[in-house]
Amino acid sequence: MKLATIRLDDHRTTAVRVDGDELVEVGMPDVGAVLAAPGGLDAAASADGPRRPLAGADLAPVVPRPGKVVCTGLNYRNHITEMGRDLPEYPTLFCKFADSLIGAADDIVRPAETEQFDWEAELAVVIGRQVRRADEEQAIAAIAGFTVLNDITCRDWQFRTREWLQGKVWDSTTPIGPYLVTADETGPRPALGIRCEVDGRVVQSDNTGDLLFDPVHLVRYVSTMVRLNPGDVIATGTPGGVGHARKPQVFLNGGELVVTEIEALGRLANRVVPEGA
Amino acid sequence: MKLATIRLDDHRTTAVRVDGDELVEVGMPDVGAVLAAPGGLDAAASADGPRRPLAGADLAPVVPRPGKVVCTGLNYRNHITEMGRDLPEYPTLFCKFADSLIGAADDIVRPAETEQFDWEAELAVVIGRQVRRADEEQAIAAIAGFTVLNDITCRDWQFRTREWLQGKVWDSTTPIGPYLVTADETGPRPALGIRCEVDGRVVQSDNTGDLLFDPVHLVRYVSTMVRLNPGDVIATGTPGGVGHARKPQVFLNGGELVVTEIEALGRLANRVVPEGA
Repeated sequence: MKLATIRLDDHRTTAVRVDGDELVEVGMPDVGAVLAAPGGLDAAASADGPRRPLAGADLAPVVPRPGKVVCTGLNYRNHITEMGRDLPEYPTLFCKFADSLIGAADDIVRPAETEQFDWEAELAVVIGRQVRRADEEQAIAAIAGFTVLNDITCRDWQFRTREWLQGKVWDSTTPIGPYLVTADETGPRPALGIRCEVDGRVVQSDNTGDLLFDPVHLVRYVSTMVRLNPGDVIATGTPGGVGHARKPQVFLNGGELVVTEIEALGRLANRVVPEGA
Repeated sequence: MKLATIRLDDHRTTAVRVDGDELVEVGMPDVGAVLAAPGGLDAAASADGPRRPLAGADLAPVVPRPGKVVCTGLNYRNHITEMGRDLPEYPTLFCKFADSLIGAADDIVRPAETEQFDWEAELAVVIGRQVRRADEEQAIAAIAGFTVLNDITCRDWQFRTREWLQGKVWDSTTPIGPYLVTADETGPRPALGIRCEVDGRVVQSDNTGDLLFDPVHLVRYVSTMVRLNPGDVIATGTPGGVGHARKPQVFLNGGELVVTEIEALGRLANRVVPEGA
């Protein structure tokens, strides 16, 4: 099953199930609410609300206000290598705020303060039930499904200090969506082609099966520290091919179309727009 | 004015104004709601709701669910020195999740997974209005007031990878409160004595006037990246005297009473309790 959150107007959203080229309203305000409701996914699967065409729908971030957005750095073997690091023993974690999230076709707002605005295509895990110190079985059960995310990064700010946060949290920079694809369609450790294109040029191309710490591992690891709640998101890290690691380096200056796609999960297509433009 | 959030039962809280040794209900569920309501602070100042004694009140985290908890590392000159670092050009930032917050007298839950559970007394800024790219005047106006926080840290997890997050976000480890003291009482750059005691032994003692990046600077800096919203919290960093930097090192093993106090702001007194005990 594919679920999405669409905008009805400036103030309201609704959760929909994707049935081919139609969207079926499931009677809840967003996918976060579906996940938080007991039996919400079953209710969404059988809902028969108003229908509208998928074409032209205004997609919001698939979970608009996750309580936590935990991000993983350095998790594809080839990206670790290109950044000049050794394979780590533990996942490197940082976070984003919900205000950084945008929808699948929204503009990526490029801040005037950065000179090094870069892409990071990622597989994102969406949590479906509360879990703490998950064992293998509990971690698998806690994964509602997967979506696509691009952890757009201000590299100059990322490396201003020894903590990456300030390169990662800028408002309206992180597309997430278009859908939550439930784990019954993908399995808990999907091995899917992942690509990022900038103006039609492929800049990242890998397979999510190359993750050093897979989704189940990450749910177990993160839940050691914190309760994971329905709607929480864990971004799993990006493969090689970021602009920072290219020779010469390449960054997003404004106007580019960034396409982020994972096989079977869907496609983000976001225009980079300078702030205030 | 001093405001607090108190628990009425397992499910409900209420915001109160502290009038001497009495608490006056202000008709909103928590201090976060007071800050989010237009004119909320004025309404709280003039509210004349039911009264109850301060003694015995069950204090919740002063803002129970901040949208953002931004934390600063390395911000007192003497703590930077004891950690063996140079004075930085920019503040080092990381974050916490709301689930890590506990009230002023709640137990600090010591996870079984850490061997290096440490204290960090901090002044925390509480935001009172939405602000982005604040100038000096806007930053001052955006500061609702201040509270006390202890950024209890699992040092071994903090240093597992190059990102500090995983030492900082454990559930139910971060006391915050007891009050929001509004900025009209403190000014926007309070110079107040700050102390941490463990079982009556003073382990940190400094003055918040020693901050390298003061509250106004931090609001300006953080708001460059992200919208700050009412109820958001910026912890300003800890002075020297943490257990990790002592010779020999000292950590919290369970049973200790950690008192965190800032002159004119109030006092946290939290027992360290091993998880599951």
